[in-house]
Amino acid sequence: MTHAKKQLINSPETVVVEALEGLCLSHTHLQLLEGSPQIKVVINKNHDKSKVALISGGGSGHEPAHAGYVGDGMLAAAVCGDVFASPSTAAVLAAIRAVTGPGGCLLIVKNYTGDRLNFGLAAEQALSEGYSVEVVVVGEDVAIDAPSRLTGRRGLAGTVLVHKAAGAAAARGAPLCAVAALAARVSDHLATLGVGLTPCTLPGKPTPERLAPDEIEIGLGIHGEPGRASVRPPPPAAELVTRMVKQIASGSPFFKLPSSSSSTSSASAPRLALLVNNLGGTPPLELSLVAGAALTAARADLGAVVDRVYVGPFMTSLDMAGMSLTLLSYDMDPEAALQEAAAEPGSKEDAASASSSSSWAHLLQLLDDPTSAPGWPYRGPALPGAFDPASLAAVRAPLPAAASAAAGAPGPGAGGEAVPPLPAGGLSAAAAALGRALRGAAGAVVAAEAELDDMDAKVGDGDCGATLAGGGRAVLAALDGGAVPLHSAPAAAAAVAAAVRGAVGGSSGALYDILLTAAARQLKSSTQPQQQLDASPRDWAEALSAGLAAVQKYGRADVGCRTMLDALLPARDAALAAVERGESGVAAAEAAAAAAEAGAESTRGMAAAAGRASYVPAEVLASVPDPGAVAAARWLRAVATALKA
Amino acid sequence: MTHAKKQLINSPETVVVEALEGLCLSHTHLQLLEGSPQIKVVINKNHDKSKVALISGGGSGHEPAHAGYVGDGMLAAAVCGDVFASPSTAAVLAAIRAVTGPGGCLLIVKNYTGDRLNFGLAAEQALSEGYSVEVVVVGEDVAIDAPSRLTGRRGLAGTVLVHKAAGAAAARGAPLCAVAALAARVSDHLATLGVGLTPCTLPGKPTPERLAPDEIEIGLGIHGEPGRASVRPPPPAAELVTRMVKQIASGSPFFKLPSSSSSTSSASAPRLALLVNNLGGTPPLELSLVAGAALTAARADLGAVVDRVYVGPFMTSLDMAGMSLTLLSYDMDPEAALQEAAAEPGSKEDAASASSSSSWAHLLQLLDDPTSAPGWPYRGPALPGAFDPASLAAVRAPLPAAASAAAGAPGPGAGGEAVPPLPAGGLSAAAAALGRALRGAAGAVVAAEAELDDMDAKVGDGDCGATLAGGGRAVLAALDGGAVPLHSAPAAAAAVAAAVRGAVGGSSGALYDILLTAAARQLKSSTQPQQQLDASPRDWAEALSAGLAAVQKYGRADVGCRTMLDALLPARDAALAAVERGESGVAAAEAAAAAAEAGAESTRGMAAAAGRASYVPAEVLASVPDPGAVAAARWLRAVATALKA
Repeated sequence: MTHAKKQLINSPETVVVEALEGLCLSHTHLQLLEGSPQIKVVINKNHDKSKVALISGGGSGHEPAHAGYVGDGMLAAAVCGDVFASPSTAAVLAAIRAVTGPGGCLLIVKNYTGDRLNFGLAAEQALSEGYSVEVVVVGEDVAIDAPSRLTGRRGLAGTVLVHKAAGAAAARGAPLCAVAALAARVSDHLATLGVGLTPCTLPGKPTPERLAPDEIEIGLGIHGEPGRASVRPPPPAAELVTRMVKQIASGSPFFKLPSSSSSTSSASAPRLALLVNNLGGTPPLELSLVAGAALTAARADLGAVVDRVYVGPFMTSLDMAGMSLTLLSYDMDPEAALQEAAAEPGSKEDAASASSSSSWAHLLQLLDDPTSAPGWPYRGPALPGAFDPASLAAVRAPLPAAASAAAGAPGPGAGGEAVPPLPAGGLSAAAAALGRALRGAAGAVVAAEAELDDMDAKVGDGDCGATLAGGGRAVLAALDGGAVPLHSAPAAAAAVAAAVRGAVGGSSGALYDILLTAAARQLKSSTQPQQQLDASPRDWAEALSAGLAAVQKYGRADVGCRTMLDALLPARDAALAAVERGESGVAAAEAAAAAAEAGAESTRGMAAAAGRASYVPAEVLASVPDPGAVAAARWLRAVATALKA
Repeated sequence: MTHAKKQLINSPETVVVEALEGLCLSHTHLQLLEGSPQIKVVINKNHDKSKVALISGGGSGHEPAHAGYVGDGMLAAAVCGDVFASPSTAAVLAAIRAVTGPGGCLLIVKNYTGDRLNFGLAAEQALSEGYSVEVVVVGEDVAIDAPSRLTGRRGLAGTVLVHKAAGAAAARGAPLCAVAALAARVSDHLATLGVGLTPCTLPGKPTPERLAPDEIEIGLGIHGEPGRASVRPPPPAAELVTRMVKQIASGSPFFKLPSSSSSTSSASAPRLALLVNNLGGTPPLELSLVAGAALTAARADLGAVVDRVYVGPFMTSLDMAGMSLTLLSYDMDPEAALQEAAAEPGSKEDAASASSSSSWAHLLQLLDDPTSAPGWPYRGPALPGAFDPASLAAVRAPLPAAASAAAGAPGPGAGGEAVPPLPAGGLSAAAAALGRALRGAAGAVVAAEAELDDMDAKVGDGDCGATLAGGGRAVLAALDGGAVPLHSAPAAAAAVAAAVRGAVGGSSGALYDILLTAAARQLKSSTQPQQQLDASPRDWAEALSAGLAAVQKYGRADVGCRTMLDALLPARDAALAAVERGESGVAAAEAAAAAAEAGAESTRGMAAAAGRASYVPAEVLASVPDPGAVAAARWLRAVATALKA
C-alpha cells in the first residue's frame, strides 16, 4: 500500500504556513510575521517589550508546540520550521527583532543539533545587533542512560513546562538573568520518557510500516525516530505506565526517593508535577486512563505527592499513537518541603524578587499563573493544591438513594411512589379486579412468547416474544410476592414499571417503563392517597393516554410507523371515547381491546420507518404484523376479559 | 490483519471506568458516583443545588464528551455508557438524584433512540419522585436532507455549545424554565456536518477496513456509522471545507444569507459562531489549517461575520481521523443584528432576567463565561469581539528590519555592525593584508572542493567540499563587490559571516556563521571604531578563541570528536601562545596553521561520536581524515601564506 495517507491538507509544501494562518485567524492575539513561507514566526502582538520576551520553536509537526504557546504569560514568539526541520537562523533572528525590546529575550531551545545551531547563531547575531539575549537548551529525555557528550539528551514535552514557568516569571516582571536562571533550573529538573504505538505519518507520505502489529517502542523521540526498546506484545497500560514511571525516576539525576520508601507522610515524600502528553493519535479516553495510572504509580511506587498534573496534547508527533510522561521535581530536603507546603500559597511576592526564589511553592505559583496561550489548557491551578496520597477513594461519591433531595418530594417507595398503608378490611373489589387485570395482561404476554418470537424472526431479530415474556414473568412474580400495592393505583402502576425495568432490556423495555411510569404519575395527580383504590375508568383511560404521550415524546413514533403504537393509540382513543360516553370500565376495556386488535392487524404490510425492519423486503412485511403491536393487543384483550370475570 | 489495534488500555471491559477514574484523579472537582461499572456518573462536587443542574451523557468514546464538560458553568453531571452505548435509565436516575436540588435539573440529550429512551425514562421516574426535570433533545446533523420523522437529526458536536450556553445561564442563576428554553433555542439554531478519513477502532478490536485508501466520507455520525456520501479521491482541504460550509448553510433552516450576497457590510451580514471539532485522530496541525479554511469560507462564501471560533476535540469518535464543522447562528433581522453589535458587550444584566434575553449578544456572553470544565479549552472569549471580515491580512505582522529596537543598539549595517566611514586616504597596509588573508582563505576552500567531497563520500554524504566551496565563492564575491569593509575588523568579520550565512546550508554553514559572528562581536569589544584597521594579532587570536567558544557552546564538540574543531582548537591554542610570547601576526598565523594541519591529520582513524560517520566501519575511518578539519587546516594555511606576502 503506497498511497499517501489521507490528510486534511492542501499540499505538503503549504501545510505549515496554512496551519499557522488558521491558528492566527482563530486567536486574535496571534500574528504571523510577513515573509512566509521562508520565515514562519508567530508573535504575540500584545507582548510588552519592557519585559523579557520568551522565544522558542523548532520543527513543525509538534502542535500545539510551539505556536500554540504564544500568548501573555508564555512565549512572545514561536519560530516554526518545516515539518521536523529546524527553522533557519534568519527566521529566529526575525523573531528576536520582532518581539525583543529593553527587557531582552530568552531563547528556549530543545536539544537537537539543528535547533541548537540555528537558535545559537541567531543569538550571536542578535547580540551583535545590541540585543540582550540568553539561551537555555532543554534536554530531558531519560531514554538514553549515558547520552553522548556531543548530542546529549533530547528535548521533549517537558520543554512546555519551561515555557510556562519562565513565561510566568517574565510576565511578573523578572529580569532576563532571573528568567534564564529559572528556565535552566526547571530544565535541569525535568525527566521524560515516551512510548510509541504507531509511527507517525509525514504530510503527503504513506504511513511507515516500521512497527509490527503487536509491537510498541519505549524511549522514542518526537520525530518518528525508533525508540530505545521494542516491547512485544504490549503489556496492559497500567503495567506499562508503572514501568515507565519507575524508569523515569531512576533515570533522573535530581529525583530522590525518600529514605523510607514505605513512608507516605507528605513531610518526607518527594513533590512532583506530572505531565501526560498525547503524542497525537491517542484517543482522549486512553489518555485519561494513562493519567490515572501514572498518578497511581507516582504515589504507590515512588511515594510521591503529585502537586500538579497536566493531561493533553502538549508536544505531539503528528498522528503518532502514544504518549510521554514527564516528571518535574526540585531536589529539596524534607524540611524545606515541609516548610514550603505550610507556606501561604497566595502570598504576594515582590515582582522583582519573584523569579529569584527557587522554591517549589513558587514554581507551582508560576505554573498556575494564567496565560492566553491557546495550547496551554489551564487558566489556573491544574490541581488546587496537593492531593491526599491515598486519594483514589476521594474520587468516589456515594450513590444517592431514591430518597429525593428535592424540597417537598415524597419518601421512597416502590418506584418512588408514596404507598398508603394497607386497608384493615382487606382489598376492595376494585383492587381485586386490578389484580386480575394485571395478572391477565402479564400472562397473555407470556403465553404469546413463541408466537411473537416467530413473527419477529421474519422482520426483526427474533427476540420480541422472549423480551416481553420476561417482563410478563417479572410482573407475575411481583404480584405473587405482594410487591404490587393493589389498593393504590399510582403505586401499583409504579410497581409494575419497576418490575418491567428490572427484567426487560432494549427499546421495548424502556418504552413500557416510560408508559407505566408516566401513567403512574397521571394516576397520582388524579387520585387521592386513601386506603381503598379509587381510580375511575376515566382515571385509567387518562393514565393510558398520559403514558402513551410520554412514549411518543421519547420514541417519536405514531400510527403508521409499524410499532406497538399502531395498536395502543387506537386503543387509547376507543377507551377515552367510551368513558366520554359514560360507559363502564368493562365496556371501555372491551372497546380498547377491539381497537388494538384492528390496529395490530393493520400493521400487516405496513412499511417500517426505522430499525431493522426497514431492511426487510416488502413481501415479507406484507405477510407479518408487527409483533409489538400484536403483543399490545393481546394484553389489552386479557385486561378486558379479566375485568368481566 | 486481524490483530486488535494497539491501545493504551488494560482491557476493553474496564477502559471506560478506568478512564473516568483518571479524569477524576486529574481534576479535584470531579467525582465518580459509587456503583460503577454499572453506574458511570461523573459529578461536579462543587455544584450549587440551588441552581439548575445540567445533566448530559451518552455512550463513551466521544471524550472529552461528556465527563470532560462537568464543572462550574457547564454540566453538574455526566452519565456515561459503555463505548457507543447509551447509559442505563438507572444510571441517569442516579445522576439526577446526586446533583438535583431545589433548582431542578435539565437533561440535555443527543438525539439517538437509546439516549432518548433512557434519559426520558429517568426523567419520568424523577418527576414521579418529585424532582423538577426538563429535557431538551439536540439534533443538528444536516447530513440528512429530509430526516425521518421517527429518528430525526442526530446530535453531534454542536451539543457542546448547548452545554456551554445553558450551563452559563444556570450558573448566573436563571430558573429551570429559562435555562431549558435557552437550551432549546440554541439547539434549534445549530447545524453540523462531519467528514471522516478513517473508520474508528473500538477498544480491543481491529481497525475496520471499510474505507478505501483514497476514500473519505461526508455526513457521518460519531459512532463509526457510514457517511452519507463517499468522496474519492479526497479534494484538497480548502475545497472540502468550502463545500461543507456551503452545505451546512444551505441545510440549516435557520440560516439566512443576506439579501445581497456580495455585501460584506457587517450590518447585514449573518453572525456566526463556528466550532471546528476534531473527531479524534486528526493532528492539531491539520485542524488549525481546517479552522483557517472554514473561517475564510464562512466570510467569503457566506458573507458572515464570525464572532467566535472554537477549535479542538469536543466530541470525538475514538481514534477517527476527520472533523466536523458546526455553525451556530440566530435568525435575526439586520436591524437587530446592528443594534446588538453596537450594544455594550460588558453591560451587566440582572441574573434573573439574564436567560430570558434571546439576543445574540447575550448568547456570546454566555459562551464567554468562565467554566471549570476541563474539556472546554476557553476560559474567556475565544475571540475577543468580532473580526474584520477581511481579516486574513490582519494576521500578518510586518517583518522587522535588522534595525534594533533595543535601547542603545547600533544602527543596521552589514551583519548589523556599525561601519565607520571609509578612510579618505584609502586602505592601510593592515587592511590590505586582511583582504589578502580573506581572499586566500576563501580561495583555498574553493580549490579543495573536489578533494573534500571525495573524503566526505567515504565517511559522510559527500557534499562537504561543495558546501564549503559555496561559502568560499560567496566570500570572494563579497570581497570583489566591496561588501567587506576591510578598514574595520568587526565589520569585516560580520560581512564575511553574512556572506557565509546566505550561501552555506546545513550544520557546517551554521557553525562557520556562529564562529564568525561571535568573532566579530569580540573584535568589536576589543577595537575602537576608527578610520583605519587597528586590530592587533592578539585581537585576532582572541576573536578566533571567542568564535570557537561559541561553536563549542552550540555544537558541543571538542578535540577528539572528529570535527573541524580537531583542527581549529589546536590552532587557537597555538595562536594564543604565539601572541602571548609577543610574536608577530605572521608567526602566530604560521603556528596556528601548523597546529591545524597536525590536528586534521589526527582525525584519521578517530571514531565519530555523532552523525552519519558514526555508522561508518572503523577501517574506512582509519584511512580518511575528517574533511571539515582538513578544510580548516587549508584555509588557516592560506591565511598564513597571504600574510607573509
